[in-house]
Amino acid sequence: MAHQHAIIGFGGMGTWHWQNVTERVDGLDVKGIYDIREEACQSAKEKGLHVYASLQELWDDKDVDLVTIAVPNNFHKELSIAALRAGKNVICEKPVTLNAGELEEIIKVRDETGKLFAVHQNRRWDKDYCIVKKILEEGTIGTPYYIESRVLGSRRAMHGWRGHKVNGGGMVYDWGIHLLDQAMNLIDSKVVSVDAHLFNIFSDGVDDNFKLFMRFENGVSYLIEIATNCFINLPRWHVTCNDGTAVVEDWACNGKMVKLNTDEEMAWDDEIVYTEAGPTRTMAPRPKQTTAELELPKVETDWADYYKNILDVIDNGAELIVKPEQSLRVMKVIDKTFESAALGHGLECYL
Amino acid sequence: MAHQHAIIGFGGMGTWHWQNVTERVDGLDVKGIYDIREEACQSAKEKGLHVYASLQELWDDKDVDLVTIAVPNNFHKELSIAALRAGKNVICEKPVTLNAGELEEIIKVRDETGKLFAVHQNRRWDKDYCIVKKILEEGTIGTPYYIESRVLGSRRAMHGWRGHKVNGGGMVYDWGIHLLDQAMNLIDSKVVSVDAHLFNIFSDGVDDNFKLFMRFENGVSYLIEIATNCFINLPRWHVTCNDGTAVVEDWACNGKMVKLNTDEEMAWDDEIVYTEAGPTRTMAPRPKQTTAELELPKVETDWADYYKNILDVIDNGAELIVKPEQSLRVMKVIDKTFESAALGHGLECYL
Repeated sequence: MAHQHAIIGFGGMGTWHWQNVTERVDGLDVKGIYDIREEACQSAKEKGLHVYASLQELWDDKDVDLVTIAVPNNFHKELSIAALRAGKNVICEKPVTLNAGELEEIIKVRDETGKLFAVHQNRRWDKDYCIVKKILEEGTIGTPYYIESRVLGSRRAMHGWRGHKVNGGGMVYDWGIHLLDQAMNLIDSKVVSVDAHLFNIFSDGVDDNFKLFMRFENGVSYLIEIATNCFINLPRWHVTCNDGTAVVEDWACNGKMVKLNTDEEMAWDDEIVYTEAGPTRTMAPRPKQTTAELELPKVETDWADYYKNILDVIDNGAELIVKPEQSLRVMKVIDKTFESAALGHGLECYL
Repeated sequence: MAHQHAIIGFGGMGTWHWQNVTERVDGLDVKGIYDIREEACQSAKEKGLHVYASLQELWDDKDVDLVTIAVPNNFHKELSIAALRAGKNVICEKPVTLNAGELEEIIKVRDETGKLFAVHQNRRWDKDYCIVKKILEEGTIGTPYYIESRVLGSRRAMHGWRGHKVNGGGMVYDWGIHLLDQAMNLIDSKVVSVDAHLFNIFSDGVDDNFKLFMRFENGVSYLIEIATNCFINLPRWHVTCNDGTAVVEDWACNGKMVKLNTDEEMAWDDEIVYTEAGPTRTMAPRPKQTTAELELPKVETDWADYYKNILDVIDNGAELIVKPEQSLRVMKVIDKTFESAALGHGLECYL
């Protein structure tokens, strides 16, 4: 029999969960929703969903064994703990909490209740990320040492509560945490330094532009950039490995890899570039015949695998893919990020 | 009467000085050169230049009142001081010294002798840099808050002595110092933090890839990147200002500016982007009619202005453009750069 599912918070993301679970996840039926906003309840009714009159009614509904929490960030901790204590398995939207300490409280309650708790770090299923992961796993262009991961927009404002500090708004929590979660799953090594630059260009009290420069213990350096005021975008991914470079331009996953074939046809003295104010040999372009251009690997991704894994954990004790312990590591780096930004310089860490 | 000029070190850069001074600088004649290498002396003889048999012969030549030093970096301090003490005006190639302390020694001797001392930071005349400087001065896209300045190549090795530690090789000293000198002349504010990542990917003992993330006191963040193993280049300049973005792609100065026209035709709800694993409104593309694309400003640059300024200082007491005191500030940031890289995290400073 299908698991019964309820969604708390039926805004943009809550509705997206409903639609995608309904259309794409077998064995899970969305029974109802809870929301404090009349228009959200109305929308749910029109979709044939039960609307819980109170959280208590939802907690008491023994049919429902999985709850997805998709409310503003500042309510994640309280609702996650209440749902776990009510005996529900819980999926919580990202950022799971506003800091590592709050997540530790949730994990404690998870351990007490023995229920499942997972964070909806859905962007581990983003195609661009999976392509980069595959490139590194296959070693096509060697070992990475410098990665730039960017999401750049120009809308300036953030949608709805994401612009408010009280709700845990801002780009670190909204997009930064996705890119950081990806980074920390891509590079299997401790984060040993962070240097975070936060900007308030057009927002009132939350960061609307964010740059994070990190070192991993294995020698990989990593730049994360989120912009809401960038009118000429740089690639989504720029990945430098010892044997070559990969670029994923955009979410449509245009891009390529270029790697070295041979150094044999390269002479120093034939290749001088004269810029306006001086020559350079070191930076002269490499003769084209010494390199090869490769297509990006093909990957198939399916976001529904997120929920399939959740059901497999509940039913069969499978291994959870997005582990709260991973999110705890991410939240500790987020804590360090805000600390670095507030102090105005980079910090050592071991996370 | 034309000033008489001598060049110490007649390799790649020394020869370039001779050629350009001869062709493009009125009032300055290259009389001769000094080099310890037979082939360099032979090349100078073929060009009709006098070859000094010793430094002492050059110091004693009262006709020569300007000396350009273009030898490996580790000899800059000793030769600059000796030339000043011999009563010469001195131009020294960059990096002027290997650290700030060495430059302070030179400045002390300059003050004692009263002669001119200048560093050949010629890339202040690079067209791409001058375009960016003009954009910021004219305020076409507002006030800057994030700048990325990159020189990326894929030749891996560095030419000649630039690959050797003993000679002060490596990319911080070779290209990094140019981009840092540009940064510190573009942004009129103190450097308050540096986070430097140095890599030895293919070189023995010197940095062949270099990333420097800096904060200026006025709130501008700045990324400098030098690569010798990058096969897909990012733009030479990416400049984010509050009203728009400018990109200079390359030394040929292809590029554009994009700025905001109006927010009026932008609605949130019409514009959702569905990526493989989730929707985004904040990062949906901005409607094209709300922005305007502008051409980069035109600038005329002439590297010969560097030497013209030097002659104007000597003859007329004009203001020196590339001041050793500016280079001292740059060298202090370079010192901090190496310290940050060695410690493995970012550092506060006030330089």
